[in-house]
Amino acid sequence: MITEELMKSISVSSPAKMVMLVIDGLGGLPVNGKTEMEQSQIPNLDKLASKSICGLTDPISPGVTPGSGPSHLALFGYDPMKYQIGRGVLEASGIGVELAEGDLAARGNFATIDENGIIIDRRAGRISTEKNRALCDLLGDGIEEMEGVKITIRPGKEHRFVILFKGEGLEDRLTDADPQKNGKPSVPATAISDGATFSERIVNRFIKEATQLLKSQESANTVLLRGFSQIPKIPSMTELFKIRPAAIAIYPMYKGIARLVGMDVLDAGETIGDEIETLGGHFHEYDFFYVHIKNPDMFGEDGNFPGKVRAIEEVDEFIPDILDLEPDVFVVTGDHSTPSVLKTHSWHPNPVLLFSKFIRTDAVDRFDERSCVLGGLGRIPATSIMPLMLANALKLNKYGA
Amino acid sequence: MITEELMKSISVSSPAKMVMLVIDGLGGLPVNGKTEMEQSQIPNLDKLASKSICGLTDPISPGVTPGSGPSHLALFGYDPMKYQIGRGVLEASGIGVELAEGDLAARGNFATIDENGIIIDRRAGRISTEKNRALCDLLGDGIEEMEGVKITIRPGKEHRFVILFKGEGLEDRLTDADPQKNGKPSVPATAISDGATFSERIVNRFIKEATQLLKSQESANTVLLRGFSQIPKIPSMTELFKIRPAAIAIYPMYKGIARLVGMDVLDAGETIGDEIETLGGHFHEYDFFYVHIKNPDMFGEDGNFPGKVRAIEEVDEFIPDILDLEPDVFVVTGDHSTPSVLKTHSWHPNPVLLFSKFIRTDAVDRFDERSCVLGGLGRIPATSIMPLMLANALKLNKYGA
Repeated sequence: MITEELMKSISVSSPAKMVMLVIDGLGGLPVNGKTEMEQSQIPNLDKLASKSICGLTDPISPGVTPGSGPSHLALFGYDPMKYQIGRGVLEASGIGVELAEGDLAARGNFATIDENGIIIDRRAGRISTEKNRALCDLLGDGIEEMEGVKITIRPGKEHRFVILFKGEGLEDRLTDADPQKNGKPSVPATAISDGATFSERIVNRFIKEATQLLKSQESANTVLLRGFSQIPKIPSMTELFKIRPAAIAIYPMYKGIARLVGMDVLDAGETIGDEIETLGGHFHEYDFFYVHIKNPDMFGEDGNFPGKVRAIEEVDEFIPDILDLEPDVFVVTGDHSTPSVLKTHSWHPNPVLLFSKFIRTDAVDRFDERSCVLGGLGRIPATSIMPLMLANALKLNKYGA
Repeated sequence: MITEELMKSISVSSPAKMVMLVIDGLGGLPVNGKTEMEQSQIPNLDKLASKSICGLTDPISPGVTPGSGPSHLALFGYDPMKYQIGRGVLEASGIGVELAEGDLAARGNFATIDENGIIIDRRAGRISTEKNRALCDLLGDGIEEMEGVKITIRPGKEHRFVILFKGEGLEDRLTDADPQKNGKPSVPATAISDGATFSERIVNRFIKEATQLLKSQESANTVLLRGFSQIPKIPSMTELFKIRPAAIAIYPMYKGIARLVGMDVLDAGETIGDEIETLGGHFHEYDFFYVHIKNPDMFGEDGNFPGKVRAIEEVDEFIPDILDLEPDVFVVTGDHSTPSVLKTHSWHPNPVLLFSKFIRTDAVDRFDERSCVLGGLGRIPATSIMPLMLANALKLNKYGA
């Protein structure tokens, strides 16, 4: 991929409008000979494919299964191996905690420790989510601040929570304060760079004070923290591409990733219909729209093949509404594959179609994994999608004389 | 792409002959369903394609439109993002000025400055080319040398000229001495690295002395200089690939680029027929020939679709003459696309065919953009073409044991 410096030097603004429709977990694997896409009735996407240029993208590199962070960064035109979004940051984004540069985020568990300092249950007997909420309030009220660092604790499901340390001088190069297995002694977080010694002190002091506050609890009498991370120092899409980008996503994690790259996050409502309505309502305000569709991935993760088929078919119904807005460049793709047979993200490349005035159409007239193999885009890195969209929107100047 | 060190370590000389036919701006976009290539009658290229392996190349990276400098460097096997050819160097090459390492080149305009130092016409009323010649002679005679730096001035068309500073200690990290807009004060060149302070002094002294010499001129009473650049320190093709390369090009810019990478530049005449005659006449002297065809790009830039079709058809007539020379490896491709509908270079990948004894032929029997999508080479970076030619000429040893 080209360098960020080069991108900044050739990108220019233009009035052209771009829409990137990301169908989460779109690609699949055959069951009885057909993938979820191949099984689906998607006349609108098929028709659009016949007027588009199609292909396949690799989010990271062939064979590498991406998480949602790297797969989205690649689609947004960032090197997914240069910028890493840590687990703490992703979880915090996932439950809607807004992060600023320098904030230190981590995932937490309530856990059970015995009198000898041995962690005997890393999940504190899977306490209820209600109990979790009460304990997070207890800790939040008891430990608001330490040495100028503000603490925010947000409950997740059962024994899980997210913690945010907000203050000057924090760094995320810390080992997990989590022995990872029951029956082992608790471990402190340890700085793995000189800059992280202050973080180390704050984190371990927090664990100590929290354990003190939880002393009288039956099972949840300590906390484990892991996945310490800060948001990467990442140039905004506006800085790199000179665009005004907006995100339309229902789930907090995708809003969080979009916010990290400088998108305005619009109120997307609750359904695909709401999302497309949001797109139409704001179409004059921005020149790049990221629209995220979650359901196909969820059904894929559940191993629900017919459910994923129906979820893909549901997206198809909204394609005419998007085309009615007359975007200059329209891309439909996935962030990664989630084959129902694997019940998880996979390494398989993503089908992609790109629709614009300035394409060489190809012979593909069916939007699925195997039809896209013969598409005119060939098999390209996912990081090429953003430059191709910009080029088709005439937003990239010539490189070199 | 592989490193230059690795290339040097595996390349060996062999008697095999290679011809790279570069049809400038070859690729296009459909008008009424067909691209310029698809519309053209090119039976010889089609027949050759059916005996070759075909594909598509990206000059820089998908979505990035290249200038002629980077697109040719990529075809010649150089990383086009590592070596950059500045505007001054390219213009100097373009009018046939020979450059040595360390020479500082810039583009110049004769311009009109008022008594308050405001540039009121950046083009001096577009003086005639004859007037331009006379003024360049005036400046050349008046300012031959400054502090050991020799000055060469060559007229271009109308108000344009090229200037070359030749001497020790020059560097090109200078801002333009050009306000870029009428109605603004003249600006000096400013060094943007410590090493360029001597260049800064020389350039600004030249502008001052030139303005003194032009004092009595009605409109062309000062000069603006921009695009300061030096030829990149680039290893020769002989050094990298152990070949004896020759260039056959009619236009000076392409001769200039070929000279930069160490090719012998042959006298190519005025027509494609002359070029192919030159190829035949020197075929025994070299083992690599770069043959450049300009017309399809010119018609593309003019938005002349039928003209570009005819220009491609004209090339086709000479294919048998090239084949009669029995090159061991023969590549036909473009340096970049120039679709008539865009009237400029574009980002679309280039069709390529590679003919040799040692290929796996594919099903492609028509030489155009969409047929090449299904070619055996797939979609590859343009920097891969040179290694593939060398491999097919058995000029690359095995890497590793």
